[in-house]
Amino acid sequence: MKHQSLAQIAHNLRYNKVSAGELVAQAIAGFDSSESSVHAYKHWAGPQAARQAEAVDVFLDSGQDHGPLMGMPVSVKDLYGMPNMPVFAGTDTEFSDSWQVPGPLVQSVIAQLGIVMGKTHTVEFAFGGIGTNPHWGAPVNPWSSEGAPRASGGSSSGAGVSLAQGSALVALGTDTAGSVRIPAAFTGQCALKTTHGRWSTQGIVPLSPSLDTPGLLCRTVEDLAFAFAALDGETKSPIAPQDLSGLRIGVIENVVWDESDPTIAANTEAALATLERKGAIVSRVTLPGVDAVLDIFRQGGLAASELRSFMDANCPDRIARLDPMVRARVEGADQISSTEYLRRRDVLASSGRNGLSVFDQFDVLVSPTVPISAPLLSEMVDGASYRAANMLALRNTAIANLFGWCALTLPSGLDGNGIPSGLQLIAPPMQEKRLLAIAMGFEAAIGRGPDLLGRPPVLSSAT
Amino acid sequence: MKHQSLAQIAHNLRYNKVSAGELVAQAIAGFDSSESSVHAYKHWAGPQAARQAEAVDVFLDSGQDHGPLMGMPVSVKDLYGMPNMPVFAGTDTEFSDSWQVPGPLVQSVIAQLGIVMGKTHTVEFAFGGIGTNPHWGAPVNPWSSEGAPRASGGSSSGAGVSLAQGSALVALGTDTAGSVRIPAAFTGQCALKTTHGRWSTQGIVPLSPSLDTPGLLCRTVEDLAFAFAALDGETKSPIAPQDLSGLRIGVIENVVWDESDPTIAANTEAALATLERKGAIVSRVTLPGVDAVLDIFRQGGLAASELRSFMDANCPDRIARLDPMVRARVEGADQISSTEYLRRRDVLASSGRNGLSVFDQFDVLVSPTVPISAPLLSEMVDGASYRAANMLALRNTAIANLFGWCALTLPSGLDGNGIPSGLQLIAPPMQEKRLLAIAMGFEAAIGRGPDLLGRPPVLSSAT
Repeated sequence: MKHQSLAQIAHNLRYNKVSAGELVAQAIAGFDSSESSVHAYKHWAGPQAARQAEAVDVFLDSGQDHGPLMGMPVSVKDLYGMPNMPVFAGTDTEFSDSWQVPGPLVQSVIAQLGIVMGKTHTVEFAFGGIGTNPHWGAPVNPWSSEGAPRASGGSSSGAGVSLAQGSALVALGTDTAGSVRIPAAFTGQCALKTTHGRWSTQGIVPLSPSLDTPGLLCRTVEDLAFAFAALDGETKSPIAPQDLSGLRIGVIENVVWDESDPTIAANTEAALATLERKGAIVSRVTLPGVDAVLDIFRQGGLAASELRSFMDANCPDRIARLDPMVRARVEGADQISSTEYLRRRDVLASSGRNGLSVFDQFDVLVSPTVPISAPLLSEMVDGASYRAANMLALRNTAIANLFGWCALTLPSGLDGNGIPSGLQLIAPPMQEKRLLAIAMGFEAAIGRGPDLLGRPPVLSSAT
Repeated sequence: MKHQSLAQIAHNLRYNKVSAGELVAQAIAGFDSSESSVHAYKHWAGPQAARQAEAVDVFLDSGQDHGPLMGMPVSVKDLYGMPNMPVFAGTDTEFSDSWQVPGPLVQSVIAQLGIVMGKTHTVEFAFGGIGTNPHWGAPVNPWSSEGAPRASGGSSSGAGVSLAQGSALVALGTDTAGSVRIPAAFTGQCALKTTHGRWSTQGIVPLSPSLDTPGLLCRTVEDLAFAFAALDGETKSPIAPQDLSGLRIGVIENVVWDESDPTIAANTEAALATLERKGAIVSRVTLPGVDAVLDIFRQGGLAASELRSFMDANCPDRIARLDPMVRARVEGADQISSTEYLRRRDVLASSGRNGLSVFDQFDVLVSPTVPISAPLLSEMVDGASYRAANMLALRNTAIANLFGWCALTLPSGLDGNGIPSGLQLIAPPMQEKRLLAIAMGFEAAIGRGPDLLGRPPVLSSAT
């Protein structure tokens, strides 16, 4: 199927060139043909979605417009409350029904008559960047070579896969340290991490309320901008691509290239060279404060204490049953004193404030989204290998969370393993609209994911 | 059918005790059994509504809540833009498709998955209080005696009838001088005229933009409060009845009783006596400024000039084809100079401001809603009789519009002709929530319309 933008699809729905029923039938076909090999969904609601699509078509036939996401297949991470769908948050036990009550973001999808196809897998309590889950298994990266399944990235581990398989056109994820950007980068998709506090996290099982943010994954930046405008109460006008001419791009030079896969570094440099040819001014910049915030991050950041506090209050019995990779950090929270916790908060806040001055010189900062290739799932059963890969996977993305900024990833090419790599853009707090505009300019120069990367091999072989 | 409140119905929809399909089927049955005798609708969309109801049931079955009006049958006055439904505004010619674009109020009904059953009749350009229309015929008051059809009140002439026949549970009307309150009073319903500027009139064919207000009709005050809260962006919490004990009721004593039907006056006094027994403090008050604003009203007010201006710009060819009762006033606008027009605006604004001090002494003002019984339609073909009845029908309600206040009517009983009479409550600008709370207190004391009045005779004979 030729790639169509969400804007084109929205237009076609309203001019009777496609029905919601057809869109959802395509989404179901994408699921049916690949789910057994990629495992994107914890809960699949295809039959309900098909009935809803017919219902949406009644309202389209009535000439009604319920919003930009009307009739669009959407996947939702298994942290979000969604009526009629169980919440596990990646744990081994279903949460109580009160967690199914949708928060404002899901309610906006519902109100627009967007069609939720199901709940996508997550790392347990979203606490990890690789995408593994001992209770429910890890989704498989659709770019894996046959017989060598690789991680899909986490913690929104099913979100990127749902887009790749075509079972959704928009995926709701969450991002506390990279959890929408890593799976997007590993699966050839685009993702936006919103500024903390911009969108409500009500109705979402928390990991670390101080840093948790809802986020979006789409197949292209153009689609991301469309979905963001559809869901962001403050964004009334469409977002147009930023002209690259004279755009000041600051390439972070400290930390983010360390231990980088050379093919990913090469993809990043090639993308930057393309942007420079299109008139952007590309310079290197040392971002101050990175070491300080990443030191805190490596010691469990705020998440260890905050998740532990949530579990003590809501589900203390689950601590013993946690994924060992998650449990180690939750149990370790015992060792973090309240003064240490508060010191960490202060360092993060002041580092984010101080770092902002870099935007006097640059319109946007960039880095490789993830410095390493998606690991082989077979290698992630070893604790030491997992921890090392996890910290590297999260390192570049976590900076934006720890600083309190917003960020985005788009594909930069395929790495040496044939796995997509991502280019990360970082912007000041609440500058999502400008960030999306700049990223649309990047996308116009570099090429859209579906054009740049082609069709994922696992899905190609499955059909 | 036992009377059920909108709140009960909303609850039952969500707990699977009734479906939207069943509600709409009942609404269609109400239409089918009585429409040929009462003529509420200019455009009936029953089949589309039935399909939408099934679609709404899909979303209810999915556990989704799209808002309080979800699944509720709603009728919309033929001044409002509504997708897929023609706009005539009571004229002889359909307006262009751009007038079908819904404004915020209708869009809110749509967004909540309220089900619009069709477009109800209106006086041409809403310019008249009796309910007649030479192009499309007048709806018939369902309380008429056999063979002696009476007016249903205007200008929202089909709105009250749609509630009486059961084809809608909420009716959207407009009120420039009484156009929701008069039809509600004549047909035994309740109605709220909102403060000018509270709700947008975008997407509504204008009569007099300086005074036009959207308004609601429901079967009970309790339902009015439910529908108001569902549609008013500023009202987040449910509205509860006001305790009558110590409530200071000011009965307007000047003008509003002149030429009153004695049985209507008696119904009003009986209602006031009931309120007094329940602890309200009922006093008489002279409302200053009434004569000044009604003098202006009798000379065409602002509406004659403003409608003429709209027609000159949008449909000058229709002036010659206007209902003669409307045309006389539109053509007469030639004689109103700009300085006279501006003088009128100033007098209305200052009278409204000056009058407000009466609310230092009273929580609410009351009057008979309409001092006369619904006229026989046969007598309304005579111009002089029409003009006299029209001015009397509009007089008491127009005061609230001319002053810029909000107002409400609820049934006070049956008059000597067996036609419902109404009790009007008037409150300061933007005090709708308090007005509804007080009126709910009144309703609890006096009795709800369906209990007080029984079933309308025309509908009883038709079934």
